[in-house]
Amino acid sequence: MSGIDVLLTDDARMSRSSVIREILALVDADDVLSLAGGMPNPKTFPIDDIDDVVRQAIAEPSGDALQYGRTEGMTGLRSTLADLVADQRRRPCAPDQILVTTGSQQALDLIGRAFLDPGDEVAIDDPGYLGAIQALGSRRPSWLPIPVDADGMDTHVLELALRSGRRPKLVYTVTDFQNPTGAVLHPDRRRHLASLADHWGFVIVEDDPYGRIRFDEPDLPPISTWTDRVIGLGTTSKTIAPGLRVGWTVASPTVVAVLARLKQATDLHTSTLSQSIVHRLLTTDGWMHERSHELGSFYAPRAAQLRTVLLETVPGAEIAPARGGLFLWMRVPGADTTALLPAAVDAGVAFVPGSAFSTEHGAHPDAMRLTFATLDPAPLTEAARRLASVVR
Amino acid sequence: MSGIDVLLTDDARMSRSSVIREILALVDADDVLSLAGGMPNPKTFPIDDIDDVVRQAIAEPSGDALQYGRTEGMTGLRSTLADLVADQRRRPCAPDQILVTTGSQQALDLIGRAFLDPGDEVAIDDPGYLGAIQALGSRRPSWLPIPVDADGMDTHVLELALRSGRRPKLVYTVTDFQNPTGAVLHPDRRRHLASLADHWGFVIVEDDPYGRIRFDEPDLPPISTWTDRVIGLGTTSKTIAPGLRVGWTVASPTVVAVLARLKQATDLHTSTLSQSIVHRLLTTDGWMHERSHELGSFYAPRAAQLRTVLLETVPGAEIAPARGGLFLWMRVPGADTTALLPAAVDAGVAFVPGSAFSTEHGAHPDAMRLTFATLDPAPLTEAARRLASVVR
Repeated sequence: MSGIDVLLTDDARMSRSSVIREILALVDADDVLSLAGGMPNPKTFPIDDIDDVVRQAIAEPSGDALQYGRTEGMTGLRSTLADLVADQRRRPCAPDQILVTTGSQQALDLIGRAFLDPGDEVAIDDPGYLGAIQALGSRRPSWLPIPVDADGMDTHVLELALRSGRRPKLVYTVTDFQNPTGAVLHPDRRRHLASLADHWGFVIVEDDPYGRIRFDEPDLPPISTWTDRVIGLGTTSKTIAPGLRVGWTVASPTVVAVLARLKQATDLHTSTLSQSIVHRLLTTDGWMHERSHELGSFYAPRAAQLRTVLLETVPGAEIAPARGGLFLWMRVPGADTTALLPAAVDAGVAFVPGSAFSTEHGAHPDAMRLTFATLDPAPLTEAARRLASVVR
Repeated sequence: MSGIDVLLTDDARMSRSSVIREILALVDADDVLSLAGGMPNPKTFPIDDIDDVVRQAIAEPSGDALQYGRTEGMTGLRSTLADLVADQRRRPCAPDQILVTTGSQQALDLIGRAFLDPGDEVAIDDPGYLGAIQALGSRRPSWLPIPVDADGMDTHVLELALRSGRRPKLVYTVTDFQNPTGAVLHPDRRRHLASLADHWGFVIVEDDPYGRIRFDEPDLPPISTWTDRVIGLGTTSKTIAPGLRVGWTVASPTVVAVLARLKQATDLHTSTLSQSIVHRLLTTDGWMHERSHELGSFYAPRAAQLRTVLLETVPGAEIAPARGGLFLWMRVPGADTTALLPAAVDAGVAFVPGSAFSTEHGAHPDAMRLTFATLDPAPLTEAARRLASVVR
């Protein structure tokens, strides 16, 4: 280390890329079939629709799609998102309850800054979303990992922790087709979590990036149906395109105002060009409904294919059927998936080991997250075979 | 305050919108002519060029302009920006010295997080850029305001402070057509600042958003010409369009890697659609050169007009001629511009009082920042007349 590097704070210097990320960074190579990503398939991008609306947006006489905008988000988009949220919750939602964010990753960063002092407790899905662990983890919280099973976060374990004296300020969970397990939080647990929040006074951060990628699953009411103690996160990354970086946060007007003040110093506002594109697509009659249907039709067969091949070829593999989203979670009892990763990359296939998805060191040693979203059917089967050969 | 608001951290609850911002928020009204903004004129937006390249970007078979991207920025854009920086500095610059950011505001936030612990000293232009005061201020530094005169930051005052024991970690300055004064940092001071950084071991944050809006001014070498102890900030907000939210940071590969790790948890990456647009425009032969010429031709006459009318109508006004950028800085000895603002808004004109641009309470009481960028010539003259009537 030389030059100005010595002036970096201890925190900044100690923030390190994980070993897993370093291995996966090598995976760009053409000869590795990756099941490791979390990206939607570019074939699903609505290119023609975006092309139409982006030209309209740029040509607007106001210049609003290219000009500086309000930190909270463009007025029309906030209003459209509020209506969408009101529909889901079957309760009113006003535009001043919406903050447009630069992807929902930014919402996690802002929520961490707004609610967490070092040492504050945070309960989180275990296994849970790596990006939330990173963003909230930068506030150095005390973690309370809550196990996730086929019905999502086990709220009874959370209740026991609360009764034994743990006091999380935030409880973070992905409700629909969770990252990494694909689990859907059971309606009874949604109500239970809402009642726990009301009783114990914590904030639920309800993250729902995958809810529009459904494989013949019914829509479930969000937790915010039952309590005001929810900050809801949404994103267009899986329904329109991640490159736009448009997400949103739903909270009380007071919390939105605080998050907006923090956002102002962070990036002034989210791209108005991206916001204009999103606004125009979301207000096209029937567009999102149709889109959700297309996404389910595109991904469901791939999910089924990957699971079938893996169950046939990997001895002892346990994989729940995918009900939506982008991921399968595979357990191979007795395996050490972190140790397997380098050999897998050598064999031309990549995955993310289970240990990456926990705040606890060494958790989920026999599990891995696999995406069925990226590869076409033929390479998807080949990737599964390579993976099977390494696991065996 | 009710509900989850009580769980906000003290810092978050105490962050407040300033009185000035609250007054200026009322200025949307049609009957107020605003000289308060910092926005480029939408008539300067290169709409046709953006329309051309955005369609090419969206149609790319790779889908890269709509997909998740690398946190550091798209490879091609980093490479193009590195070449541009190398040209300015007349020294080599490699792509791994570039971090693409969500506007240069994000760079300020990341630099604050990477370098500042509470109480660390930060020297800054006084008057200086409000967004830097906000972003770096969120780290609760100890401020060392350095006066700005017609030749920019007075580096001799900084040297005296250093000799008397002050130890800033960061020195923040806008070198070309500074916000809010329009001053250009004199070449002798650039060299002086570089030598002070080498001697005393601080980091210079050299912010240059306005350098391409020049009114017959020669290009001056950046401070990074003479020292490696510079983190350089650039943006496309004033040359292409602010709505894209594309800026960049130039630093050592080590510092770029640290900033990128922080950025990853903040927003994953900057809009790839915006990056693709910027990359295509910057690689169009001669485009930026022509664009810079157009911007100068558009703004220079407006700057001269506003200054002339004000000098004719406001008794005692002192205004340096604008050499570039978007702003005039007017002093009216004896006036209290903060107190004048409500009356001005009542009279149908808005400005930003000098006190907004300082880390010191009550500084620059007799000054105001005025933009010549937004209004057309007729309303620009009318705004100046209204302002004169209020000051008199």
